[in-house]
Amino acid sequence: MNTTDPSEQNLIFPQGEKANPDYFTGNAWVKLLVNENEFNSVIGNVTFEAGARNNWHTHPGGQILIVTDGIGYYQEKDKPIQSIQRGDVIKIPADIKHWHGASRDSSLTHIAITAVTPKGSIDWLERVTDKEFNSYSVS
Amino acid sequence: MNTTDPSEQNLIFPQGEKANPDYFTGNAWVKLLVNENEFNSVIGNVTFEAGARNNWHTHPGGQILIVTDGIGYYQEKDKPIQSIQRGDVIKIPADIKHWHGASRDSSLTHIAITAVTPKGSIDWLERVTDKEFNSYSVS
Repeated sequence: MNTTDPSEQNLIFPQGEKANPDYFTGNAWVKLLVNENEFNSVIGNVTFEAGARNNWHTHPGGQILIVTDGIGYYQEKDKPIQSIQRGDVIKIPADIKHWHGASRDSSLTHIAITAVTPKGSIDWLERVTDKEFNSYSVS
Repeated sequence: MNTTDPSEQNLIFPQGEKANPDYFTGNAWVKLLVNENEFNSVIGNVTFEAGARNNWHTHPGGQILIVTDGIGYYQEKDKPIQSIQRGDVIKIPADIKHWHGASRDSSLTHIAITAVTPKGSIDWLERVTDKEFNSYSVS
């Protein structure tokens, strides 16, 4: 079963807490799995409803996304939106401005592994506008 | 659907390559997701058939296991075997001698996130004997 219907998702983790609306547009949830005092990375499971995404942001030490369910979007500044789906592993270099989230029609669940550095792990920037989010086109 | 029958598993990643038999007893497979040149950790997906396990080993920088399917065992030296299952997150401290694998009757799939340090990421030790493996008892 490899469905993208959120109601059919075979969730591995509890949904967790509602993501901070200052940094997310639409409904998203974060389940913290490993905190920065426990390992050299912060690890969390993030679920986005269809249409939901995080703000533009950067990571001083980079980040790895492991998509465990659904279909979503990933975009780096000045590049087109990429479609991402279950089984994809996204390697986000340090200091690259980007955002990620669900696609227009499907939810997305990913594990996020974020390096902890002396400069922290994340710097939040402006929201992803509806115009930006809706710019995805199948290439 | 939260099954432990391997034939019913809803696999996220390809199975990958057969694990090195010098360090594994029974059948296991490793799919490398992120290598040590790409991030501050090595990340892989590991699948163990029922009865399969890795050797005793240590990690200079610790390791995180995220169990995505099945039921397995985790044991630290001088402690009893713990049962682990889908959704469990195991935080393995640096330099603690341990092993992990499937249980007697079920396969196990986990993502392994291993810190990369100047001392490397893993030191392999002796095999887990059948007597050790079969010492699990429900507490």
